[in-house]
Amino acid sequence: MEKFDVHILGCGSALPTLRHNATSQVVNVREKLFMIDCGEGTQVHLRRSRLRFNRLNHIFISHLHGDHCFGLIGLVSTFCMLERTARLHVYAHPELERLLRPQLDFFCKGMPFDVVFHPIDPSRREVVYDDRSVSVETIPLRHRLPCCGFLFREKPALNHIRREMVDFYHVPVYMMNRIKNGEDFVTEDGTVIPNERLTFPAAPPRSYAYCSDTSYLPRIVEQIEGADLLFHEATFASDNEARAKQTQHSTAAQAARIAQAAKVKRLMIGHFSARYDDEKALLEEAQAIFPDTILADENLTVAVGGR
Amino acid sequence: MEKFDVHILGCGSALPTLRHNATSQVVNVREKLFMIDCGEGTQVHLRRSRLRFNRLNHIFISHLHGDHCFGLIGLVSTFCMLERTARLHVYAHPELERLLRPQLDFFCKGMPFDVVFHPIDPSRREVVYDDRSVSVETIPLRHRLPCCGFLFREKPALNHIRREMVDFYHVPVYMMNRIKNGEDFVTEDGTVIPNERLTFPAAPPRSYAYCSDTSYLPRIVEQIEGADLLFHEATFASDNEARAKQTQHSTAAQAARIAQAAKVKRLMIGHFSARYDDEKALLEEAQAIFPDTILADENLTVAVGGR
Repeated sequence: MEKFDVHILGCGSALPTLRHNATSQVVNVREKLFMIDCGEGTQVHLRRSRLRFNRLNHIFISHLHGDHCFGLIGLVSTFCMLERTARLHVYAHPELERLLRPQLDFFCKGMPFDVVFHPIDPSRREVVYDDRSVSVETIPLRHRLPCCGFLFREKPALNHIRREMVDFYHVPVYMMNRIKNGEDFVTEDGTVIPNERLTFPAAPPRSYAYCSDTSYLPRIVEQIEGADLLFHEATFASDNEARAKQTQHSTAAQAARIAQAAKVKRLMIGHFSARYDDEKALLEEAQAIFPDTILADENLTVAVGGR
Repeated sequence: MEKFDVHILGCGSALPTLRHNATSQVVNVREKLFMIDCGEGTQVHLRRSRLRFNRLNHIFISHLHGDHCFGLIGLVSTFCMLERTARLHVYAHPELERLLRPQLDFFCKGMPFDVVFHPIDPSRREVVYDDRSVSVETIPLRHRLPCCGFLFREKPALNHIRREMVDFYHVPVYMMNRIKNGEDFVTEDGTVIPNERLTFPAAPPRSYAYCSDTSYLPRIVEQIEGADLLFHEATFASDNEARAKQTQHSTAAQAARIAQAAKVKRLMIGHFSARYDDEKALLEEAQAIFPDTILADENLTVAVGGR
């Protein structure tokens, strides 16, 4: 199966702790790296992950709270020192460019690459990125300021060739891509060999939904339905449900209810409040509702759709 | 002896590594904390140090390269979440306020304390801070943009009371502070007891000189002469002397030559280039010239004037 992994660089919440870094994740789709959020220190955590800096060209920022974006200037600054030349695309609320541009102009003067800001309207669902392998669409969330999640949908892979059948019918090499794309094959004597006999279908396309930060928001269920992996914030446990509501965050039980309603295959919870010394209580609370739940953790890599 | 310590939070150079953090130090003078430089991640390293956040009211920024100031916004932002109310004073090139103010206004809206920027002219020597315990003066340095070091000078401590003599002459309690301050004592029969008989002198005031980033600059010797502790950058070893000159940094040998000429009591080198896997070569190079040299390291605490 083609690579589709999520690497957790940080899964803490606003107040930094020694256990968890500020929020950042890297999604690896077929060796292209996509970053989601970039809290302070992300460049160091990225280095620790041994993911390759030069495979990262796209950064998606969910919202403009510091724990989700203070690491951007340092990351870009390091890219300058490493003499990066490829464009870096940043997808964020338009306010971010206003705030970052003067810093880029000052600290990265004469930088050898462009930072291209793509303004996002977090209040509406839209495809903000699309290539041959994957599309990324925003998931409008509800937080104390405009905020959205991101849904990564893999593109369907090509059918797989049945080697023995292709040999049997002497299919020429130049036909292979067309057959992978679903064409039938016509032999020299005019016999039509249907595509199903020559190929078997690729695994169905997978999807990853990232939902942070947000209050409990059942309307997202329809959009993320059936996702292979859902990351949902669980800043609090249910004993702090009032506090969650007030700060527009979710509890572990609420995250699990979303996962259950959306029939996702697996739930990963994160964005843990500094008040929890360990997150076992959050995990148990979520698993009581949605058993296939795991805790995010720094340096954890989770295969989307895999085990 | 009253507390006068230097805590190293980070001693790497521009390119971050997994061995060293970006530059930051905390000087503890009689339990008041003064920060010098604030690279990315400093708030987490400060937390790790267990120094008390609420004792920190003054931050000195040597120059506006990112590895010396990118951590400020995160630190201030955390102070907001901790509901700090005391003013925070930042001493830096005036450009810093222009760059940071829009971020403070956005990310720390409605903050419960003031950040007061004190503009520094790094090209001239001036006292930028002064209280009953310590003064801080700038040390003009030479780097690729305006840059200065900082010289912390302890104020002379009060004389120590000779307990047995004070008892012998029946010196009343209300006189004690005056005697510590150097006054003589007059007994009931009019005899003058000279202060030297009642007290012994406090240890001489100590000083700490922080010099980073800078090319080799012998003119600073006169200003830092006799310092109890000198922190001097040593980004490179002598095999990279040309590179040091070009980037306006120093070699370990050059740092040692400054220490030797200034007759400081002890030298600590830091701001190590990412190219050195360990800094033993830098240490040996410096010690060959100035034996009383140590390497800076994260979480190291060095007493100024102590062992």
